[in-house]
Amino acid sequence: MAEKSVSSYLPSDTYNSLPKDGDLTFLHTMLRVNDLDATMDFFKALGLQETRRKESEKGKFTLVFMASAPGAPEIELTYNWGGEDFAPPSRSMGHLAYATDHIYALCESLQAKGIVINRPPRDGKMAFVKSPDGISVELLQKGEPLEAKEPWASMENIGSW
Amino acid sequence: MAEKSVSSYLPSDTYNSLPKDGDLTFLHTMLRVNDLDATMDFFKALGLQETRRKESEKGKFTLVFMASAPGAPEIELTYNWGGEDFAPPSRSMGHLAYATDHIYALCESLQAKGIVINRPPRDGKMAFVKSPDGISVELLQKGEPLEAKEPWASMENIGSW
Repeated sequence: MAEKSVSSYLPSDTYNSLPKDGDLTFLHTMLRVNDLDATMDFFKALGLQETRRKESEKGKFTLVFMASAPGAPEIELTYNWGGEDFAPPSRSMGHLAYATDHIYALCESLQAKGIVINRPPRDGKMAFVKSPDGISVELLQKGEPLEAKEPWASMENIGSW
Repeated sequence: MAEKSVSSYLPSDTYNSLPKDGDLTFLHTMLRVNDLDATMDFFKALGLQETRRKESEKGKFTLVFMASAPGAPEIELTYNWGGEDFAPPSRSMGHLAYATDHIYALCESLQAKGIVINRPPRDGKMAFVKSPDGISVELLQKGEPLEAKEPWASMENIGSW
């Protein structure tokens, strides 16, 4: 992927705004996706936005970077135009985790968009959902757990995560 | 995994120090590992340090969080004592990416520790290595690429990443 320029990878406003951490700075987790639109819709529903994009005619791929805000750690979604069909991740890929201001509001909003809440936030603090490719995403309430509340408190798990 | 308390997940000094990004804050990428020591050695060689750890006698698992500095985005290494053997990640798990101050110095140091540089930094800007479980890690030179330099400039790729 020789066309990936440093500038497309490393806009200075991204890594300069990340916590000062000595030599090494975490940038992103890259995931290959089978359906770019469906995957972007999923991460937009979570609250991420597209921060930058690169299309390569020559390499026949599209890279979409998404983050909760410009300057925050990114995910890089790689979509290969050739239609390589990626197997769901093995269990060695655990999950991506995000903290949210209000886990009930977020899960309600996800559900309204047709996203299955695989692990409902029964305890007011933790939920799991899955991307269209089966990447697990953990959602955690910031600070103290919220008070237990229906319909979440008695909602069963659905599938795996 | 009911024993995972919110406080073990979300020390306030972690998420409070991350970039302000509205409702959602990226916390970590979780990876399941077959050999915790070997995996920790690998990530220590990259420059990460253990930030916190949780052992559960009841759940028979150990969680080790690592980051380039306290407060930076973490990886969560999950080691299940029962000896579940995790398959290498499918290609849907792409990689973790880190920016480094000096990509040649880092690759030299990794090599000295016996870590294969699958994609040498021929261009002074990008390298790939793999964790013991086959998780790809991309290393990117911060800012402008370094000047091309031997032995890197003519070094061949080794395997996949």
